[in-house]
Parts: sequence; structure tokens; C-alpha cells
Amino acid sequence: MSTPATENRQILLAERPTGPLAPEHFAATTAPVPEPGPGEVLCRTILLSIDPANRAWMQGRTYRDQIGSGEVMSGFALAEVVAGDGPAPGTVVLIDGGWQEYAVVPAAEARVVTPRGPLNHQLSVLGITGLTAYFGLVEVARPQAGETVLVSAAAGATGSVVVQLARTLGCRVVGIAGSDAKLAFLREELGADAAVSHRSPTLREDLKAACPDGVDVYFDNVGGPLLSHALTRMNVHGRIACCGVVSAYDRADPEPGPRAVPGTVVVKRLRMEGFLLDDFAARWPEAEARLAAWVASGDVRVFEDVYDGLDRAPAALIGLLAGDNVGKRIVRVGPDPA
Amino acid sequence: MSTPATENRQILLAERPTGPLAPEHFAATTAPVPEPGPGEVLCRTILLSIDPANRAWMQGRTYRDQIGSGEVMSGFALAEVVAGDGPAPGTVVLIDGGWQEYAVVPAAEARVVTPRGPLNHQLSVLGITGLTAYFGLVEVARPQAGETVLVSAAAGATGSVVVQLARTLGCRVVGIAGSDAKLAFLREELGADAAVSHRSPTLREDLKAACPDGVDVYFDNVGGPLLSHALTRMNVHGRIACCGVVSAYDRADPEPGPRAVPGTVVVKRLRMEGFLLDDFAARWPEAEARLAAWVASGDVRVFEDVYDGLDRAPAALIGLLAGDNVGKRIVRVGPDPA
Repeated sequence: MSTPATENRQILLAERPTGPLAPEHFAATTAPVPEPGPGEVLCRTILLSIDPANRAWMQGRTYRDQIGSGEVMSGFALAEVVAGDGPAPGTVVLIDGGWQEYAVVPAAEARVVTPRGPLNHQLSVLGITGLTAYFGLVEVARPQAGETVLVSAAAGATGSVVVQLARTLGCRVVGIAGSDAKLAFLREELGADAAVSHRSPTLREDLKAACPDGVDVYFDNVGGPLLSHALTRMNVHGRIACCGVVSAYDRADPEPGPRAVPGTVVVKRLRMEGFLLDDFAARWPEAEARLAAWVASGDVRVFEDVYDGLDRAPAALIGLLAGDNVGKRIVRVGPDPA
Repeated sequence: MSTPATENRQILLAERPTGPLAPEHFAATTAPVPEPGPGEVLCRTILLSIDPANRAWMQGRTYRDQIGSGEVMSGFALAEVVAGDGPAPGTVVLIDGGWQEYAVVPAAEARVVTPRGPLNHQLSVLGITGLTAYFGLVEVARPQAGETVLVSAAAGATGSVVVQLARTLGCRVVGIAGSDAKLAFLREELGADAAVSHRSPTLREDLKAACPDGVDVYFDNVGGPLLSHALTRMNVHGRIACCGVVSAYDRADPEPGPRAVPGTVVVKRLRMEGFLLDDFAARWPEAEARLAAWVASGDVRVFEDVYDGLDRAPAALIGLLAGDNVGKRIVRVGPDPA
């Protein structure tokens, strides 16, 4: 446990963005360290998970309430229990604690984490990101060995795990990303069979060439025009795991919807299915064990992109939305437990 | 068996339509009655199934080749085997025989039909239409008793069976149709709990009022703007059975895609799934038996809309695309087997 503190540094969402997220939408402030009430625990934040969904939560009600202006910015975090009516002090928990050094949360919502290896892995490959990749690919899309799996935002946090899982499951894997460095990363570090730039002027032809046998599974992190491209390449009885819509989160003007829906969905008998990690909560331990085994065997490598200091959280999220990350973006707020 | 004929009246697709289908796109002609080769059967057409998909087949390659200009118009038919290397003469078969009095088809593609009651039921409730409704609802959408099922083109061939099946399975059923007569039909004849006009200027509010607990299953026959409306009403973990896109078949200009795809699909964890009856071929007998039992018990009533004479097939299809049918549209080409 760390030294007792009385001040709680926080990052607020000062103003809801209507277009691209910028530093002026945030404000740093200081509040007293809160006191846990009955059934609550006080937690000290260690690592913040920076996710595209953070931006979606500013846009309106999703599967959770919209973040209000002047509220502490929302986000998942690994934290250490300090006091209160729950797990013993020193226990590491995953909480919906927000961008602050200390958070009080209901004890029932503090998920006890049993670290396997470095604590940061519990936010990346063994945490939110890896589990999202696992359930979306293995349970929603259900690829068979030999099938072609196409992944958007493939160098990102979730995508980089999906690419490696699909390769490990014996699939042909094609990753989509937006820079030469990321395309090289996909091929050389993640073992993708092919990599395609979504900025290519010949994107349509590039995808066709990269997927000569069509696409059986599309793991969609972005939505937008790429989804339309993927729909034209899908094979009969293909599956699209709808994980996120990064293309839509950071803009004021909604893009047109995919014209191929529902026509192509009927003709090719496609299944498009959205999912959230929370729906699989009962099965996290099983998935974590499989992921840990793949990490131990070297089949799945861990790529993290860690910013140091709570004050850098806004820059970490703004950059993430611009696609400047490779692997899982994390902000370290405080030290690991002693 | 009927008197041997030497002439075969046919309706050709004279010209592929680029906009709404019209009589001038068809031409009547006469050819010699064809001779079956090895492994083929000659069949005499009894009843033609008139389906919205017939129009989709003119637009381009779907799950089958596009119909070419000057070719016999494609369509499913109940027919009687006359001669050849297959089922005995007099056997009733379901064939992909086209709009003509006589067709030669591969014997392997002539599906033997065992009529239960009137032969026409084998095209409607116990045939293509009823089976499509059954598999789309029961196997793809999988509604639970007490859930709300929304059905578009609900007074049409497939929709009218879906409404009755969903009601029989204990669901709250809301049908969408385009005329006062059809709305009355939905409520009074099919037992829908509510009926909504897609032409209503207050469609959004009407749907909300008709589905106070949201929509768990949307059986989509039409695509287009109605799909977007349905997406806004879907409940978490809702399912959309994508059966057809009637709104798109008979027009030159594609409509915009649904903006809510994939954002709402993710947030609500929806499953959108396309299907074709052929994918369930092995299970037709089981479904037919269940449907026949519901017909016998009166839970499912049969609504057919029969045109008499091959020459009326173009008008039957053109009218169907304009939505002038209630129940299953059929064209009688010849008499039932003696």
C-alpha cells in the first residue's frame, strides 16, 4: 500500500466534443480523496485502460449513460483497494473508476484480479482487450482452420490480439491498418498473411488480391466505408463480428450506412453480430486461461503502448482516436502495489 | 396425365428492366415441347410461384445467375412429371422450371412433393413461402414466448405466415403493411396485436406506440428505411432475420444504407442474419409437418391470391412488386393431375 493521500487529482470532461476530441475538452482538477460508504471501497488507480469506446461514451447514451460535462472522465482501471467494505486492502481490482487517482466504487463492481505475470497484461492481453478479441473471434465469429479472417484496426489493441489468435487457430489472416509502419508490424511482428492500407487509392483491388478466396470472417473494429468493402468480399455464410465503430466516434457528421445491408446479408446468408465483453463475464476465467497459455507458448505476443502520468490521459486518448497507437494503450497513474 | 402437347407456350424476359418492371419487359412466345435427355425429366407446369425474388434475379447475380434478356423468365413451379429419366409420370414435383407450360430439368433437381390437402398449399403455407417463414422465424430469429416480433410486408406471402407463427408461438406480433385494408387484415384475420402503416407520416411514433416494450425480433422482408426504423426500436440482444429486400428490387437507384449499422448492432448486441430456404433443405419435411399440424388446428390460416393463366404471370409479378397482393401469389398454368 502507498502512503495515505488527502488530495485526489482528476481529469474532467470539461466540455463534450461535437467534432474531433481536443485537449481543451478536458480539465485537470483536485478534489479531496473520497470516503467509502457502506458496501463501497476506496481504490487507488494504478493503470488506466484507454479505449476508443471512451470517446463513444461522450456521444450519447450507449450501453451506459453519456458522460456529462464537468464530470470525471470515465474509463476502466486497474486499482488497489485502500479501504472500505470489500476486498482486503492491497487487493488488485478492475474498476469502472474514471480518470482520477482515487475512486470510490460499489464493492460488488470491483472485480478482483489475480495477476499472471506483469500487472499491465491484465489490461491488455489478459484483460479487457484480449478478452474482447477472444470472445468476438472465438465465440461470435467462430472461424474454422483454413478460413480467411479479415481484421480492421489490426495493429490496434484488440486487432493485434485478433490477428494473432486467428493465426494461432490456423486461419489465413489479413490485417487492415493505416500506415506503412503498421503494415510492416502486421506482417513481421503479428504474422499476418497479408496487410492492406485503408488509405490506399486501390483499396478495393488490394483487398481482393489479399483475400483470393474471399473473406469468411470480418472482425470489424471501425465500421464506415471499410465495412462496405468487406461486405463485397464476404463468402457465403460469412460472419461479421461487430466490435466497434472507431470511424464514427470522433466526428460530428455521421457517414452513410453500408448499402449492401441487408441485400448482401440475404444473398450471402451472412451473420452480423454485435457483442460486448460484459455479456461474457461468467466465462472470463476460462478465456483468460487460454490466452495466458498462448502468451506462455509465444503464440500470442503482447504489445503495449504505455503513457506515464494521469495528466497524459487526454493526449493518450486523442492520439488513439487518430490511430497513432500500436497495441494496447495504457496510462500509468501510480505504482504497482508494493 | 394430360393430353400430349407439341407446343410449349413461354413467357420470356424480353428486356432487363432498369427501373420498375412493366409489361413491355416480357414477351410471350411458343416453342416446341422439349425432349428430356439422360438424367432429365420433362414436366408439365401446374402452378407458378410468384415471388419478389423473381425481380431480384433480373438485377444481377445473386445466389443464382442473372436472368438474361430473351431467356424464359425464371420461377419456381409445381409440375407433373410427363416423361424422362426420373420420378414416374404423374408424380408432382417442385422445380425451378420457369414461366412455361413444359420444362426439362435435371431429375436430381425435381423435388418430389407429397400433397397434403390442396396442391396449391404446397406453394404457399406448406411450400416455399411457409417454409421460408418457418426457418427464418423459428431457426434464425428464435423468438421466445412473450417477446415482441415485428414483421414487414406482413400481409404478403411470407409475412402473413410469419405473423401467424409468431402469434402461435406466444409472441406479441406487430405487422407493417401499406394500406388500410391490409392493416385490417393483419389485425382481424391474422391476429396481429398491432398493425402499422409504413406510409404513415408518424411512422416513427406509430412504431414506438405499437411496440411499447421494444422489438426483440424483426423479420425483415423489405430492407430500406423501415430497417432503420426497426433498428431504433430493437432491444438489447435482438435478432433481425434478413429474408428479402423488396424495397430495392424494383428501382434503379439504390437507397442509402442504414446509418445504425454497425453502431447500433454493437451497442445493442444485435444479430442480423440472412438466410435462404435452400440452406435448410434437409429439414423441410420436419418443418412441413409442423406447419401442416398448425394448418389442421386452425392456428395458421392459408391466404392465397391466384391468377389464372400463364399469360397473366407478368401482371401477377408487377402487381406483387407494387404490393397489391394479400397472401401468396400463384399463377395457375394448367390443371392439377387427374
